[in-house]
Amino acid sequence: MSNTSIPKGTRDFSPLETARRNYIFDSIREVYKLFGFVQIETPAMEQLDTLTGKYGDEGDKLLFRILNSGNFLRDVPKDLLNDDAAAALSSRICEKGLRYDLTVPFARYVVQHRNEITFPFKRFQIQPVWRADRPQKGRYREFYQCDADVIGSSSLLNETELLQIIEKVFSKLNIDVTVKINNRKILAGIAEIMNMSEHLTELTVAIDKTEKIGLNSVKDELKSRGFTENQWQILEPILILNGSSNEKLTKLDLILHNSKIAAEGLNETRKLFSYVASAGIKVKIELDLALARGLNYYTGAIIEVKANGVEIGSICGGGRYDNLTGIFGLKNISGVGISFGADRIYDVLTALELFPKSADAGTQIMFANMGEEEEIHCLNIANALRMDGVAVELYPENAKLKKQLEYADKKGIPFVAIIGGDEIKSRSAMIRNMRNREQTPIELTAEARNQLISIISTV
Amino acid sequence: MSNTSIPKGTRDFSPLETARRNYIFDSIREVYKLFGFVQIETPAMEQLDTLTGKYGDEGDKLLFRILNSGNFLRDVPKDLLNDDAAAALSSRICEKGLRYDLTVPFARYVVQHRNEITFPFKRFQIQPVWRADRPQKGRYREFYQCDADVIGSSSLLNETELLQIIEKVFSKLNIDVTVKINNRKILAGIAEIMNMSEHLTELTVAIDKTEKIGLNSVKDELKSRGFTENQWQILEPILILNGSSNEKLTKLDLILHNSKIAAEGLNETRKLFSYVASAGIKVKIELDLALARGLNYYTGAIIEVKANGVEIGSICGGGRYDNLTGIFGLKNISGVGISFGADRIYDVLTALELFPKSADAGTQIMFANMGEEEEIHCLNIANALRMDGVAVELYPENAKLKKQLEYADKKGIPFVAIIGGDEIKSRSAMIRNMRNREQTPIELTAEARNQLISIISTV
Repeated sequence: MSNTSIPKGTRDFSPLETARRNYIFDSIREVYKLFGFVQIETPAMEQLDTLTGKYGDEGDKLLFRILNSGNFLRDVPKDLLNDDAAAALSSRICEKGLRYDLTVPFARYVVQHRNEITFPFKRFQIQPVWRADRPQKGRYREFYQCDADVIGSSSLLNETELLQIIEKVFSKLNIDVTVKINNRKILAGIAEIMNMSEHLTELTVAIDKTEKIGLNSVKDELKSRGFTENQWQILEPILILNGSSNEKLTKLDLILHNSKIAAEGLNETRKLFSYVASAGIKVKIELDLALARGLNYYTGAIIEVKANGVEIGSICGGGRYDNLTGIFGLKNISGVGISFGADRIYDVLTALELFPKSADAGTQIMFANMGEEEEIHCLNIANALRMDGVAVELYPENAKLKKQLEYADKKGIPFVAIIGGDEIKSRSAMIRNMRNREQTPIELTAEARNQLISIISTV
Repeated sequence: MSNTSIPKGTRDFSPLETARRNYIFDSIREVYKLFGFVQIETPAMEQLDTLTGKYGDEGDKLLFRILNSGNFLRDVPKDLLNDDAAAALSSRICEKGLRYDLTVPFARYVVQHRNEITFPFKRFQIQPVWRADRPQKGRYREFYQCDADVIGSSSLLNETELLQIIEKVFSKLNIDVTVKINNRKILAGIAEIMNMSEHLTELTVAIDKTEKIGLNSVKDELKSRGFTENQWQILEPILILNGSSNEKLTKLDLILHNSKIAAEGLNETRKLFSYVASAGIKVKIELDLALARGLNYYTGAIIEVKANGVEIGSICGGGRYDNLTGIFGLKNISGVGISFGADRIYDVLTALELFPKSADAGTQIMFANMGEEEEIHCLNIANALRMDGVAVELYPENAKLKKQLEYADKKGIPFVAIIGGDEIKSRSAMIRNMRNREQTPIELTAEARNQLISIISTV
């Protein structure tokens, strides 16, 4: 007898969970399509050398590697066969790995298929990714990403469109959100006027934590990394800037006027806000100078979305990157993308009780099985209803009615039709409403069927 | 610069391919739901001991194993570190494997979650599986399965329902099919009257090839496996039985009257045909005594579907199994299931040119980008159309119109709206039909928008 556990950090999804997850995926997919994004899929496995070196040393350790088939030890030098050499050995005995995100496979896809692709290429992709991370609450070893990217156009209309998509997805899901934006070039400008351009990464890693740990701790962290009090005196006023996003931009024009790169970032951000206004985007969008998202590959806009009223971190994020396909030899293609975090969105919808009943809808009506003659009779009625798009079950066995009703109840089926010998004779059915247990006889004429369908469909 | 190939036997799916595959998956999913099946998902990775020993020795070799993270060689005995011991070593350094089918993970799921499940449990599952098979035409290392099973009911109404589902799916996909059915108990009865009950597997493996290699070769194969001429004299008349399925059943009653198990199988099959008639199933279903599907775990009905007019093997198959969850310690639960082969269905739809245009539908109209003022104007019109559910793109850059039209053309966008300064003034748009290159000016009144939507939507 085999055991029945699953690998830690992975999950089974029950019918209810799967239906609710599909509600999220379908909502996102529908909006992506409204904006002309097309879906692609890539294999779960990539060549290991497509993946390694793309996520830093830590990321390399989190890749799931797939053991070569057959005699995987053939031709492996003996000196690799000891536990000091595990890393080197693993690349000899594993050629493939599971994808770690959708971004690198997308970059690989673009380069591999560049002659078939029409640029600007607006693609979306909704697939699972795998990371050998330490499992903890809300962090899994297998989870879905829902990415959209536009590659091959540097127009800020693309950022605008992604913001429109964010607005539409969360309005569809009924989640109240705040969108934060920033621009990597503004951050670079800040580092420049602090004379710390070479320490941009440390700077952004530290200020990215402002909301979490507070200004004082950010200051401590920066000092421990060699930033001086004078430099902090330049940075602090920027981090505590108040006013509307446009007011902040105006103040930053003055503060950062010596930095050419900052001016570029400020102009881009101003133009983006102007597009946002023109496009009639109503979702709350604010400039957040502490937003960096840790990802070093962003080169322009940085975007992050938080759900208002729930403590859960960001539920969507993205930005512009200029060199994504460079690692695969295709230079100078600018892209911008976002990714929705389906697991966190699931948690938000659960916490705020926002899953609509329709997301859970399964069988709309069950026909009880009252015996051999009756089941044949019901087969036909069930068929006719299915032709009208109604989800119908006929209980497969002539079990006790109580057991059949319990089945319907547990499965959340709202109506049960009971047709015994009397009902066959009178061409009728007893319809039991499972919520209030009321039973109503109906005739099985064509009009009554339409009436039945309309009753069923309102639930 | 990394290379950009993908592992052999795996595939990227382009936007067109993904849309067409989704058309297949959505059609299947929709029908499953109409019959009250609920969807679950299980992790890509299972514990290796959940998978091993379930698919025979050959199957074990085809499992993709995932290398343990970190120092995977720690505590591995030195004598395993040589290439003779690859198999033993692999189970020490790999705890997890990729799922090989959806059936074993489903059995594991049922046992693990048996206290949450309402039986009979009607579940469907559409997910990829992985096999380290030698890649060849039509055989991939990553492919999707689309399974539905009813577990916890031995009623033949379940088989009937699966046949209804098969009819509905292929009628939806417009594929003309023939369904072949058989019953393992009839096969067991045939072996019994041949006095070869203990060689049932060899018998079924051989006769399963009848269509492919012909009766004479089947005879040769059986003789080489120790079957006598006398036994062949019993078998041959059965394999060449003609007439309708009901006529065959009547003849088999006589031929197999000494076998109790055959009588059971014949009665089940007769009852199934009677349900098929009652349910008004019109798809061609025939009793095929040579149908065995090689899978030893079937214990009752066996089902296989072929597309008429295409040489491609079976595109759907399944059957009843009585002991699926037994391997995980839950005995005496009978189940019956089917699986649609999405890749072969894709090939059939391609060969017969049956993909509907709607399956490929992407962006319905693109707004050309004629400059800064114009793009702002178009942003709003595009928005309004999206509110009406129209998939719209606004070209992100003010490129040459020729380039923009080429983009629309390559992407298969049927209409382009061109709005320049004159059109803004006259509150109109020039609508270019990309098929015939005709341009029609329309006013942008509310009525005209509705008219525009109806034009777009007919394509």
